[in-house]
Amino acid sequence: MHAVDLIRKKRDGEELTLAEIQFLVRGAATESIPEEQLAAWLMAAFLRGLSLAEVDALTTSMRLSGVVFDPAPLRRFAVDKHSTGGVGDKTSFLIAPIAAAAGLVVPMISGRALGHTGGTLDKLESIPGYRTHLSLAEMAEVLAKCGASIVGQTNQLVPADRVLYSLRDRTATVENPYLICASIMSKKLAAGLNGLVLDVKTGTGAFLRNKQDALFLAALMVEIGERAGTRTAALLTNMNQPLGRFAGNWIEIQESLDLLADKRHPLNEDLRELSLVLAGWMIFLGGASDSAEMGRDRAEQILTSGEALKIFTQMVEAQGGDTAIFDQPEKFHNPHARMDFVADRSGYLAHVDCTLVGWAVQRLGAGRERAGEPVSAHAGLEMHVKLGDKVEAGKPLCTLFADYDGRFAEPEILLRLALMVADEPPPTEPLIQDTITVENKKQYLENAYRP
Amino acid sequence: MHAVDLIRKKRDGEELTLAEIQFLVRGAATESIPEEQLAAWLMAAFLRGLSLAEVDALTTSMRLSGVVFDPAPLRRFAVDKHSTGGVGDKTSFLIAPIAAAAGLVVPMISGRALGHTGGTLDKLESIPGYRTHLSLAEMAEVLAKCGASIVGQTNQLVPADRVLYSLRDRTATVENPYLICASIMSKKLAAGLNGLVLDVKTGTGAFLRNKQDALFLAALMVEIGERAGTRTAALLTNMNQPLGRFAGNWIEIQESLDLLADKRHPLNEDLRELSLVLAGWMIFLGGASDSAEMGRDRAEQILTSGEALKIFTQMVEAQGGDTAIFDQPEKFHNPHARMDFVADRSGYLAHVDCTLVGWAVQRLGAGRERAGEPVSAHAGLEMHVKLGDKVEAGKPLCTLFADYDGRFAEPEILLRLALMVADEPPPTEPLIQDTITVENKKQYLENAYRP
Repeated sequence: MHAVDLIRKKRDGEELTLAEIQFLVRGAATESIPEEQLAAWLMAAFLRGLSLAEVDALTTSMRLSGVVFDPAPLRRFAVDKHSTGGVGDKTSFLIAPIAAAAGLVVPMISGRALGHTGGTLDKLESIPGYRTHLSLAEMAEVLAKCGASIVGQTNQLVPADRVLYSLRDRTATVENPYLICASIMSKKLAAGLNGLVLDVKTGTGAFLRNKQDALFLAALMVEIGERAGTRTAALLTNMNQPLGRFAGNWIEIQESLDLLADKRHPLNEDLRELSLVLAGWMIFLGGASDSAEMGRDRAEQILTSGEALKIFTQMVEAQGGDTAIFDQPEKFHNPHARMDFVADRSGYLAHVDCTLVGWAVQRLGAGRERAGEPVSAHAGLEMHVKLGDKVEAGKPLCTLFADYDGRFAEPEILLRLALMVADEPPPTEPLIQDTITVENKKQYLENAYRP
Repeated sequence: MHAVDLIRKKRDGEELTLAEIQFLVRGAATESIPEEQLAAWLMAAFLRGLSLAEVDALTTSMRLSGVVFDPAPLRRFAVDKHSTGGVGDKTSFLIAPIAAAAGLVVPMISGRALGHTGGTLDKLESIPGYRTHLSLAEMAEVLAKCGASIVGQTNQLVPADRVLYSLRDRTATVENPYLICASIMSKKLAAGLNGLVLDVKTGTGAFLRNKQDALFLAALMVEIGERAGTRTAALLTNMNQPLGRFAGNWIEIQESLDLLADKRHPLNEDLRELSLVLAGWMIFLGGASDSAEMGRDRAEQILTSGEALKIFTQMVEAQGGDTAIFDQPEKFHNPHARMDFVADRSGYLAHVDCTLVGWAVQRLGAGRERAGEPVSAHAGLEMHVKLGDKVEAGKPLCTLFADYDGRFAEPEILLRLALMVADEPPPTEPLIQDTITVENKKQYLENAYRP
């Protein structure tokens, strides 16, 4: 088998066999196929598309390109959630302990800040001492103790994705549902999950802004998950503004601790509700309730009871984190510089370009320009209004936090472009726009995606 | 400017600016853009296509990526011919000296055997002592003395094409008119030509088998040549069987010497006619005749007079070749093994898969599997019949030559598939199927090529 023939085949729109895709993926993982050939194949796949069988073959080959995690010895069903990336999205810190409290295990292998979106690992690392680099054996220990463990990708797990993802980043082949699906699902399924819920973002803060594309990706991931024997569902959720009140690193942990302690706030009811629905699906797909709705009720019960907070605290401690700061989380938030960003007119918050808000958070120091750069634990942004809220000229729309004053100039420009105040409030949009399951996925897969 | 943005732009079907294309080409030439990014861009260009302005920008940027040859000090108009590659195509050895005899200079920078097609340089190197690696200054000396010089690509000339061509070979991005045009025209125009005739092959032996694609490529090259100020014409010519009698290395020189000495043979009248027409266009485009037809008449006069043979002999001597063997060329042909390939039935030669014939010649040892491999000077094939000729069972269709007997097995199988004898002769096809000039090119460019 020659890589050049497989590139030509995909270039001409033909379907590759499982053996051919395995050859490419193994070549990527072992670096025996040079990057220029993988890059040409990725671009051909981007523009020609992949069949369901090809996406399945790609996902499976990638999943099996390294070691896999086996939750069987834990003797509890394993579930997880994955989000396609948003701004202020901190649901993981709520739902992992909720699902654990419901009797499931949550081996959550997470990522770092990327582009305009935040990273679960970066947020957790704002807790002094928290270790995200656990071996699979260490993760299994934390899971046995707490039921949930949030860790980073190891080098042993899905090595093919490490090579291909880095290559896609350099070759403009990221934003494609087939390749996104294979990358996400290979990593998630390598954790040996029984159930998986996918939070596919749509709207101004999503990577796939077009709703049709997001629906296609959601259905594709459900299809591929179910083919691998993992009960899978996907929610299409609104990312037209930051989720909750805060976007950054520590301030997102702080906000999560508030909700885990049942301290509610009108500005983060969206975060609370989405977390409960996602946790409800995890509980249902993991077999711990008879429906997603019953799962949601169980999740709310767990959250308000403080059980989830207990498990989250245990997990952070088990992974080396200093939980003394959890007693007064807002006291730990110590940005060296802060600035109010005020409305220049009165009216209603009518439109948010949430991607630009994400870039503002990144430029404040909470995200990174390129892989490996350090991030600021305390940089970020607090929203004071949500879409549709009344706004008064001269009053702050949000407050910015950074390590020093010099970081505010760029974010200010970005926010001026991102936040639009108008005379009328915008039409309200549902938080959860669609739910794609094994039962209705087919209709969304019928029209193949075309770039 | 970032390469990844230019990949994304082309991926999304947008048009790149001259500055953007210059950035990519300079990045290729200086190796400052990594191959995986160039590969992704090439595949995007392959599948999305390029506008005329983009092809022009790509050709010009490539042409200027290294040093260029300036024929001005020679005080004669410079002309050349380029063929898209065929089997048994030896017109260069006739037309370069013919055009020189007509008062022009022919700085012909040629290539090597590639895939199923032969290489002008490999053929010339079958002449003991012939040097194809001349510096541009040495080429200028030969041109001043003889009016023609056939040499290999130097490292200084069009370095961007060296990088991009090798990359296209490895990434299945070769067979695309836009990229083929930029590669061919950047190299040809770097020789500072006043006139250029293109021999675009069509039929079973051509790289682009589809006639519409070949016409599009021809018109594209005429467009790009004219934009660069070089008078350009293209002939669409029949490559449904080998040109002339012989395909190989030395035996093609031998056949050319026969025609240069006005020794005609019914089996190579096609070669002679095509050479005269091509030379006629060179003479016309170089301003040495008032029409291509008058150029053809002048070419025939030169060929029959022996002037072209004299110039060819001078050129070979000037480049170090031993011309003593020219006195009895057939005596120099010394293959260690030969074999007749006989017809298994009587009838007419009805169809030739000329690409397979080319591969048979390659497998006999005349071509190469990969760049850098040596080729046999005496391997090759002599056709005893042309399309439409009567064939008798048991009589040879062709004779094979190789360095040892063990090389015949594969070529025999290929030829059995390639040569079809039937009860009826095929319809005759014209040798020159279309002529594309500055006057009629527009109609062929109207429908953009789609892969």
